[in-house]
Amino acid sequence: MNQTELLHVNFPHLRALAPFDTAHSATPWLNSPEEKHTRKLCASVEEAVLRSGLQDGMTISFHHAFREGDRVINTVVALLAKMGFKNLTLASSSLMTCNDALIEHIQSGVISRIYTSGMRGKLADAISHGLMDEPVQIHSHGGRVKLLQDGELNIDVAFLGVPCSDEFGNANGTHGKSSCGSLGYAMVDAHFARKVVLLAEELVPFPNMPASLVQDQVDYIVQVESVGDPAKISVGAARVTSNPRELMIARYAADVIEHSGYFKPGFSMQTGSGAAATACTRFMEEKMERSGVKARFALGGITGSLVDLHEKGLIEKLLDTQCFDGQAAASLARNLNHVEISTNVYANPGSKAACCDQLDVVILSALEIDVDFNVNVITGSDGVMRGASGGHCDVAAAANLTIVVAPLLRSRIPTVVKRVTTCLTPGESIDVLVTDHGIAVNPARPEIRERLLEAGLKIVDIDALYERAISLTGVPKAIEFTDKIVGVIRYRDGSVIDTVRQVKESS
Amino acid sequence: MNQTELLHVNFPHLRALAPFDTAHSATPWLNSPEEKHTRKLCASVEEAVLRSGLQDGMTISFHHAFREGDRVINTVVALLAKMGFKNLTLASSSLMTCNDALIEHIQSGVISRIYTSGMRGKLADAISHGLMDEPVQIHSHGGRVKLLQDGELNIDVAFLGVPCSDEFGNANGTHGKSSCGSLGYAMVDAHFARKVVLLAEELVPFPNMPASLVQDQVDYIVQVESVGDPAKISVGAARVTSNPRELMIARYAADVIEHSGYFKPGFSMQTGSGAAATACTRFMEEKMERSGVKARFALGGITGSLVDLHEKGLIEKLLDTQCFDGQAAASLARNLNHVEISTNVYANPGSKAACCDQLDVVILSALEIDVDFNVNVITGSDGVMRGASGGHCDVAAAANLTIVVAPLLRSRIPTVVKRVTTCLTPGESIDVLVTDHGIAVNPARPEIRERLLEAGLKIVDIDALYERAISLTGVPKAIEFTDKIVGVIRYRDGSVIDTVRQVKESS
Repeated sequence: MNQTELLHVNFPHLRALAPFDTAHSATPWLNSPEEKHTRKLCASVEEAVLRSGLQDGMTISFHHAFREGDRVINTVVALLAKMGFKNLTLASSSLMTCNDALIEHIQSGVISRIYTSGMRGKLADAISHGLMDEPVQIHSHGGRVKLLQDGELNIDVAFLGVPCSDEFGNANGTHGKSSCGSLGYAMVDAHFARKVVLLAEELVPFPNMPASLVQDQVDYIVQVESVGDPAKISVGAARVTSNPRELMIARYAADVIEHSGYFKPGFSMQTGSGAAATACTRFMEEKMERSGVKARFALGGITGSLVDLHEKGLIEKLLDTQCFDGQAAASLARNLNHVEISTNVYANPGSKAACCDQLDVVILSALEIDVDFNVNVITGSDGVMRGASGGHCDVAAAANLTIVVAPLLRSRIPTVVKRVTTCLTPGESIDVLVTDHGIAVNPARPEIRERLLEAGLKIVDIDALYERAISLTGVPKAIEFTDKIVGVIRYRDGSVIDTVRQVKESS
Repeated sequence: MNQTELLHVNFPHLRALAPFDTAHSATPWLNSPEEKHTRKLCASVEEAVLRSGLQDGMTISFHHAFREGDRVINTVVALLAKMGFKNLTLASSSLMTCNDALIEHIQSGVISRIYTSGMRGKLADAISHGLMDEPVQIHSHGGRVKLLQDGELNIDVAFLGVPCSDEFGNANGTHGKSSCGSLGYAMVDAHFARKVVLLAEELVPFPNMPASLVQDQVDYIVQVESVGDPAKISVGAARVTSNPRELMIARYAADVIEHSGYFKPGFSMQTGSGAAATACTRFMEEKMERSGVKARFALGGITGSLVDLHEKGLIEKLLDTQCFDGQAAASLARNLNHVEISTNVYANPGSKAACCDQLDVVILSALEIDVDFNVNVITGSDGVMRGASGGHCDVAAAANLTIVVAPLLRSRIPTVVKRVTTCLTPGESIDVLVTDHGIAVNPARPEIRERLLEAGLKIVDIDALYERAISLTGVPKAIEFTDKIVGVIRYRDGSVIDTVRQVKESS
């Protein structure tokens, strides 16, 4: 009886243990000096797709760190179309105007189901007008991780564009010529996906560490010509404003923060990607300098304005799930206290801890906000989808003070409405609305209202803002919808907070 | 029909989707400004144990980054004994001389099964003499992660000592007064364990980032008086030598590296924790300075000698799964290219990539090596366990050149033997043996032998070394064993490469 047999006889619960075979039985690539280095490398994306085992009906994912500059999503989906795949679920962390090219692949049945934080441009328009049989699932950034965690969303193959990687898959977004900064979205996909394919613009020597995506998460690596144009990250939603009305609202919002009771040494803030929200950061600088109040951290999408405050010592740490411009990406590479975090760490309500729970103040934008403070950031006043859920409902739910900034009218259409066309963030999560016509405080927060009044800010009732809006524009004509549901709005916990129906064609 | 009902009617596969309830239904702690900050904090380890749901028969885990200075393992097991737990599986990444106190808890049935990389001192002696009903499972560092990945080992509750953490569980080993450096072992437990309890010596303000253990991995946090004495990390196996024979062997080993064919710009190395292995690093410095050959990385357990080379620009990156002294821990806190890696990234053969696969040269130690180059690092010449598997078989299997360093005799007992008492690393993985009586090359590597001969090194056959040994000491008397298996030696892939039987008492 050999020793393994003896073991099995004496300890029946160890019967599954096999005897040793050879040193490389479980690691055959170690028999080949070359394969040790090349086993993940693919000559083409097509080869990576084949090796990944992707099948019709499976789920593919992407990140949107390059925002309007992304060159991975369209390219990979076009390849999958050419390879004959059908019925795929597309689970991109978000979709942008640059993704119009997906329309044809939805029409031809390559993509039959979509999960995304948002949509813009022609793609959003086509889907709003009934392009798909199934409604699009709109989730928040934190809510997306919850869907992955809960198993509703199962990524079979993640295609993750990265500026640089080594041959083992150690990758980051801060080095290489097309640096996008934080890979906070991609980190989640690398964690949850069954197979992870990196599309890397530069292959650099091992070890490319510290790494944002780590070698033990990556299956295949393909070197590609380009993964994205970082110059286009700050185009669109993440733009910087010089609009005087947006700047005025931003200044009011900074005043609200100053007098809210939360502007204290060690406070924390998030200012998001909206133009006015971003601008508010600059007004905060002045107040922080003057008062000597420094922030412990800023969270979420990080901008150059926040980097300025960090480098001036006004914000101790930047917790970065997405860089909104090149300055932020450069800072992430350079500053030790500018820290990359995954969207799970950022905002997943099902995570063991989400950073947004530590937030004092957040500034968010809105396409519409109603007299109950419910916010719409997805559909325009015509009922057509043209926005994104983002971290809106995540951070609104968690922060101590949630401020929405919005102009009272946009192109002569009211932003403050009786009832939002689509609800993404419930009114219970919104504390203050700042408009160019005054500041409204949620009646659930009388102490905030009191503090702002004492500071001499222009406080009005939200109903008064609504009346003011319609007195300028008249009551908007109700949008007519068909019965077809084209979008399902998922709250961060996975529940359905609203649906979007197809707009009736004006004939 | 409300919108969710409409959705369910039209899309039956979406029937599981629930309607929105309130913003905080899934996150009740957000209703309480205090609970947002305190929900993980426990007043005592006992409270953390109760909240963790630990039950009799479950598996608990620990890391051994504090080595002989650890104060967590004994304390927690004593508490569990006091609380009345029975039949627990103890899965510490390793056990040391400092863990003698566990004997009584094995005797009383608190601990009935053990997985560990190794054992020393009275605990190892007692187990070797039949203390336990079941054999101890001895695994390598990489093999431990494979057991977790394959599901043989399921950690119910990990108790992880850390020098500092914030209230969310962001922790590291580089800050705080008892800094142990890399938390490479703990990172794996934090990933795999069902519940993770941090025992933190210092509670620091959120956000304690960048973090080694991240908030989304941590369930409970307890502040404790002490987690370990960092001064004792370099005691025992990780000591620095001034023994002239060990220094001579180290010098020979450096000569072997220099002439092996692998000493080229961009090479990589691991020098482990053995005294001679560690000393070899210092001799490498001289050779690297003289020849201008710089290493791309050093891997594994990191020592002050490797830090010196890194800071002199001779080694570009240090990939650190465990700091072997205070100098290494301080460097990890300070040097950007001294990078902390988990044992999964370090050496798991089932990982999507293990750094050891990239290694050129490794120096390892041995308690015994036989004429077939099989290595024993666990049992002494008396058949009693007193060592650790460590990363030995992991790195030996993967590196391009595996060198074992050992004195021909220890206390007049041969190290080179006919057949190892216990085999941990198969001879096929060992390329060169360096002793104080000459250098033997595995016949499977004739090209290495040729290069070393050309360089004028003293090359001998391993049989000649064996003959030399017994000519000095006589043939050692065979150890007598009973039939009782007290230890199972698991190869890195999980297979059984050997067993250890109980030594027959000399009456």
